[in-house]
Amino acid sequence: MSGAPGTLERAVEATLFASDEPMTIAALAVHLGGVEPADLRDALTALATQYAARGVHLVERGGRWHFETAPDLAHLLRREKEQVRR
Amino acid sequence: MSGAPGTLERAVEATLFASDEPMTIAALAVHLGGVEPADLRDALTALATQYAARGVHLVERGGRWHFETAPDLAHLLRREKEQVRR
Repeated sequence: MSGAPGTLERAVEATLFASDEPMTIAALAVHLGGVEPADLRDALTALATQYAARGVHLVERGGRWHFETAPDLAHLLRREKEQVRR
Repeated sequence: MSGAPGTLERAVEATLFASDEPMTIAALAVHLGGVEPADLRDALTALATQYAARGVHLVERGGRWHFETAPDLAHLLRREKEQVRR
């Protein structure tokens, strides 16, 4: 990551981190008290770039945004599930 | 954040992100296939520094590490809970 995240980026980051499910820009706008969708899109794009090299990625699918494990680290999740089964 | 996270930092980040509960260094060492505790401590300290300015923080309490919402953004969680209650 480069540079410190902005105020809206931090708020979006915290909201998506705590959310049980992926969120649309419209849902984020309501949750954050009426932020402009264009500003949210900018913040999401900036966050996705900041997380691109990390072990967790910010991704969008079907208009909904969420954090997920980086694809190359998926084996860590599988190992955890195996341990739970024992 | 500054610089790209290292391999062990990314693995620790993904593991704690996906974990349902805070993890000790010993539990992380087992999960990651026998990493040295000293290396894990270095990785955790580096991660905590990288996240210090973000909307999510990496914190240690009672020997267990986890990600949590930055204290100044706790109002975003309260708002979400209020919405759920409606």
